[in-house]
Amino acid sequence: MTAPLVVQKYGGSSLASAERIRSVAARIAGSRALGEDLVVVVSAMGDTTDELLDLAAAVTDEPDPREMDVLLATGEHQSATLLSMALHALGVPAISLTGAQAGITTDGRYGRARIANIEPRRVRHEVTAGKVVIVAGFQGRSGVGTSDEGHDLAETTTLGRGGSDTTAVALAAALGADRCQIFTDVTGIHSADPRIVPAARHLPVIGYEEMLELAHQGAQVMQVRAVELAWVNGVVIEVLSSFVDAPGTLIKEDPDVEQRNKVRGLAHDRNVAKVTLVAVPDRPGVARSVFDPLAEAGINIDMIVQNVGHDGQTDLSFTVPRVELALARRVLEPVVSALEARELTTDPSVAKVSIVGAGLHNAPGYAARMFGTLADAGVNIEMISTSEVRITCMIAEADLETALGALHGAFELETPDPVDAAAVG
Amino acid sequence: MTAPLVVQKYGGSSLASAERIRSVAARIAGSRALGEDLVVVVSAMGDTTDELLDLAAAVTDEPDPREMDVLLATGEHQSATLLSMALHALGVPAISLTGAQAGITTDGRYGRARIANIEPRRVRHEVTAGKVVIVAGFQGRSGVGTSDEGHDLAETTTLGRGGSDTTAVALAAALGADRCQIFTDVTGIHSADPRIVPAARHLPVIGYEEMLELAHQGAQVMQVRAVELAWVNGVVIEVLSSFVDAPGTLIKEDPDVEQRNKVRGLAHDRNVAKVTLVAVPDRPGVARSVFDPLAEAGINIDMIVQNVGHDGQTDLSFTVPRVELALARRVLEPVVSALEARELTTDPSVAKVSIVGAGLHNAPGYAARMFGTLADAGVNIEMISTSEVRITCMIAEADLETALGALHGAFELETPDPVDAAAVG
Repeated sequence: MTAPLVVQKYGGSSLASAERIRSVAARIAGSRALGEDLVVVVSAMGDTTDELLDLAAAVTDEPDPREMDVLLATGEHQSATLLSMALHALGVPAISLTGAQAGITTDGRYGRARIANIEPRRVRHEVTAGKVVIVAGFQGRSGVGTSDEGHDLAETTTLGRGGSDTTAVALAAALGADRCQIFTDVTGIHSADPRIVPAARHLPVIGYEEMLELAHQGAQVMQVRAVELAWVNGVVIEVLSSFVDAPGTLIKEDPDVEQRNKVRGLAHDRNVAKVTLVAVPDRPGVARSVFDPLAEAGINIDMIVQNVGHDGQTDLSFTVPRVELALARRVLEPVVSALEARELTTDPSVAKVSIVGAGLHNAPGYAARMFGTLADAGVNIEMISTSEVRITCMIAEADLETALGALHGAFELETPDPVDAAAVG
Repeated sequence: MTAPLVVQKYGGSSLASAERIRSVAARIAGSRALGEDLVVVVSAMGDTTDELLDLAAAVTDEPDPREMDVLLATGEHQSATLLSMALHALGVPAISLTGAQAGITTDGRYGRARIANIEPRRVRHEVTAGKVVIVAGFQGRSGVGTSDEGHDLAETTTLGRGGSDTTAVALAAALGADRCQIFTDVTGIHSADPRIVPAARHLPVIGYEEMLELAHQGAQVMQVRAVELAWVNGVVIEVLSSFVDAPGTLIKEDPDVEQRNKVRGLAHDRNVAKVTLVAVPDRPGVARSVFDPLAEAGINIDMIVQNVGHDGQTDLSFTVPRVELALARRVLEPVVSALEARELTTDPSVAKVSIVGAGLHNAPGYAARMFGTLADAGVNIEMISTSEVRITCMIAEADLETALGALHGAFELETPDPVDAAAVG
């Protein structure tokens, strides 16, 4: 009988000090004592990544992307080596590997590389040799090969914010791991952010699609790409707290989805700003001339609303991440002139609130109940967008807590799902 | 005509902040504007290495050497990428390379690796492409090759304290560089430490052998191994300040050595402690049973004195680095019991002071003048050792400043050498 293979991932807050690293090591030693083979993916300690970004910003306004990736990757090298040392101190054989040593190859795009391939030969070799393998998350080598002169041209590339989740899921898929555990600073996924909605309920299970919408709509617990990757590869993710021993949330195909409360949870996002082009000509090609330059500047557009035009003119509104608002303004000012639109208005004091649940679109009445609840709570809706499993309203940021509380009550999210209640009972 | 190739090395204090990194970048841009091709070796920023050591010590008492090397190497990766970014910001094409990418292969000993080979193909390639190449100092990859399963087994290894000097000299030798400049926080080598002896004089030139003794005896400016490597390969080193524009010191074969003042400079070392085994049996094999276990524990022994025995017993004294005194005590306690010596005494409050100069051993009278000067200054000599180019006395640490001042005057070190005076004049 072979031991079960478990991939664990620990985030920066779980590794923020020498003391926390030692306590993560103790947790790993406990898993190992249960007979599990372990591959552990780590993020950088605490705020290391932000500190390195600050340092680079103090050196130059426009850091070279290649150099930035080598710089940022050092954060995960440090946490990986320290965790390995802490395991040695507990008598647990362990070895740290960089992303490159773990066989992770990317498409080579600095700062936002995607994993192209994993050949985890060395990971398997070290696991077979009885070691806990600690892999530096968030990184891999570009698969460039060798130069004419015979030197290795592969470069360090990073996977973007939260990329360690992706590393963990990708390794779990490549290794055919029995489980993939994401240790974080919360006890899993809740029906809303417990810091804002005290009645928020812990969810024992959530489907991939619902999790994806929650992640997209601002739930910080899991990175979107990691959830996508898990879905495509059928990797079951368990989200757990590294600080308390408590059941986590399983992210997986949910066979009980039909029996469930249609609304599984609320998401919200404050990192959003509204942009409106007032009185643009209502003719073909206008949308392209607005959104092409934004895309070229790398700005993510989310909700888009165009009002019905009259007098040959219309208003075009959309949202951008709040941190990209200044850039969006610079990009759009010449566009507004060229289109002869009346003006460009922006509002950074907005927020998005979403209800998320598989099959929402087949269940009329949810949208009406959401809008009615917000109206009763005195919250004005500025924009609306929907997907298969989600309805999102843009509201004033000042109304966010009111809106979340009212929606949580209206959809009875504090009451355990009958399916979950049966499973727990 | 090809451009002259210059290897520059910047130490941690020259790179201690974003501001200093930008000013080093400006200095490099200046060298480049003079038409030089540049390969720049960097140490970790400021106290980074010590901070990483502290972090590891907070995790475990006995950090795994392999993990420690990966951890420490991140310090140089960070400074190299930041310096490269700062050069980009000045419009200077630049690229950072890790030790491995620069083609530096070591003998694989963690924490104290020696450079086994350099194949600087990529360095040459990038220089030819018009870039300033920034190489992370202090590190190289072990040349282990590939496993049976086909994965790369090479590991990150570090060269020990001050290893970046060695990286710079080795690269200068491998590239056939025209010059090797070591930028530091002092303006070169002085006849004594100017912080202790205000009359200390700047030396325009010093021979390899003399520099080696100064470095061995505690002068912190250059690493011993780097000087050895330069001597063997005939690399001329220029030691310069990165903070002020002032002439530095050339370390090279010194053709004028015969014409010079025999004493070139004073060295001192506070990182020393005295160990005495009192009343050990005076018979063959005793020294081995004392020094074998110390060598196994990796403790460096320096001066050794054994008094003439009587009554079949003798006292055996030697010095160890002060930081290794506690370890030496632990190693020696069972030895003292086994040998039935009377006791083990230790004194951490000692220091070494040395006069250094080529040909000292051919010039009788210098030892006598040293001992007489110390006696006149009321400084008691506890132990003495000599080499071809050096005479060292161990004294109480409290007497160190008095001793250095008296010796500097007695050997007229504040007076420029006739040879140097002629060169400057």
